[in-house]
Amino acid sequence: MNETMLREAVERALKATLPAPEPDSPSAPVAEAMRYSLLAGGKRVRPMLTLAFCALCGEDWHSALPFACGVEMVHTYSLIHDDLPCMDDDSLRRGRPTCHKVYGEAMALLAGDGLLTQAFETVLAFPDPVKAAAAAKCLAGLAGYQGMVGGQCIDLSAGGQEVTIGLLKEMDQGKTVALIDAACRMGCIAAGAGEAQLAAASRYAQGVGMAFQIRDDILDVLGDAETLGKNTGMDAARDKRNYVSLLGVETAQELVESYTGQAVDALGIFPQDQSFLAELAQALANRDS
Amino acid sequence: MNETMLREAVERALKATLPAPEPDSPSAPVAEAMRYSLLAGGKRVRPMLTLAFCALCGEDWHSALPFACGVEMVHTYSLIHDDLPCMDDDSLRRGRPTCHKVYGEAMALLAGDGLLTQAFETVLAFPDPVKAAAAAKCLAGLAGYQGMVGGQCIDLSAGGQEVTIGLLKEMDQGKTVALIDAACRMGCIAAGAGEAQLAAASRYAQGVGMAFQIRDDILDVLGDAETLGKNTGMDAARDKRNYVSLLGVETAQELVESYTGQAVDALGIFPQDQSFLAELAQALANRDS
Repeated sequence: MNETMLREAVERALKATLPAPEPDSPSAPVAEAMRYSLLAGGKRVRPMLTLAFCALCGEDWHSALPFACGVEMVHTYSLIHDDLPCMDDDSLRRGRPTCHKVYGEAMALLAGDGLLTQAFETVLAFPDPVKAAAAAKCLAGLAGYQGMVGGQCIDLSAGGQEVTIGLLKEMDQGKTVALIDAACRMGCIAAGAGEAQLAAASRYAQGVGMAFQIRDDILDVLGDAETLGKNTGMDAARDKRNYVSLLGVETAQELVESYTGQAVDALGIFPQDQSFLAELAQALANRDS
Repeated sequence: MNETMLREAVERALKATLPAPEPDSPSAPVAEAMRYSLLAGGKRVRPMLTLAFCALCGEDWHSALPFACGVEMVHTYSLIHDDLPCMDDDSLRRGRPTCHKVYGEAMALLAGDGLLTQAFETVLAFPDPVKAAAAAKCLAGLAGYQGMVGGQCIDLSAGGQEVTIGLLKEMDQGKTVALIDAACRMGCIAAGAGEAQLAAASRYAQGVGMAFQIRDDILDVLGDAETLGKNTGMDAARDKRNYVSLLGVETAQELVESYTGQAVDALGIFPQDQSFLAELAQALANRDS
């Protein structure tokens, strides 16, 4: 098991889950817009986490592919809606024009709605209905208004306001950690893991998720738009507070490393080889894109 | 069992499923926007169908309340997104200003996303996980790009174009029939019904759904905005084709009655008392709001 193997399996599964529409089908435009954004590459961090946690719990990671695809669909829908003119009004994503730049606002809105719905259909295609229901419930709980959508709401409401580290953390718990948590837990659910393993997966997600978000803030200041595949300097341009504006680059990167350490520590309770997930956490802490 | 009893049970269950947020919770604004639209009244036709089909299959209808609430949440999210400026740009819904008029476009977008996600969480709160998974899968399949979202896509793409009755029917299958089908089937699923009953529920939904949509088209021409709680004459104003513009009011109402007859006929296979669902179909065919 290595990153390339997992990423290729995810790409194949996503393509199979959302096949190219018949060109004369009247709903082909929305299916094309969904595929445009879903199959645009991306790091596929979340689905890799799902597969790796399934393996870490002692099960063949292939079995978790429906859950991995569902998580990536939720992530992609959130990017499409977040890029819309009424939200961040962004033009570049994953190195390509954003969905609404290509298909128009209305179709991009529908493409996001379609991907969010399809995510649940995909998760529920898991052969064991009890695991399917548990995974879909986990995903809904963490992606909804008490999770990811809630984080987006904080982001909207915070615009221009005085923002503390406490509020920033609450926002990032929603915007970033929640879905990474779902990804890790759903991998465990696919493997039939128990409460202790689920709790450890959530601790890993907490560390990796916070580190991921703070590294994102650093790259928004220091990174290169071409390498990143999205515009940089956007938080400053929108007068948005983030870890770098509040703490400076150096302290922010120290936080990234501390959270990454927490993530790696959380893996200790698993009897299987933890090296893949430990190395992934380290790689994400030092990524340039 | 009567309409008032079912509607009141739905209202209570919706309020309990989406309680008022703590006012100092940072994600309170999105929860409030979700509640504003979800608890704005409405006919509650879809959740009533879920409960009534559960009863028709011989089970206590109270048990289907999580499914009924989930369907109504999907319906409400679709109205919020459909009313957005990039879609129909509507200002009045259920007799009140639309969600984005009150909370702004970005928050209305998130409120729709939150309701769609919460719908699945609500359905998956059903105590039997096998029935929960079956119902959630049914809902996702019929609400997604091959169902309701697909119908919205046809509507978007058809703007200004020459529209045939065939395309109109395909659009309405998605926009209206699909979710009514989900509502009816999920009621049967709650009761553990078999394939023959599910198929009959879909036939009823097909009749009622088409009749409902065509009656909607008639009311858009003849109805009164105050009684309807939404603006009228909107299809004509947007140069959208519908059954009335293609066939005239009289033929359109004949179609409403023919589809309603089909719906009532489909109830014949159920051993329980069918009068509630038969009367509901008739009432919907002649409604003024």
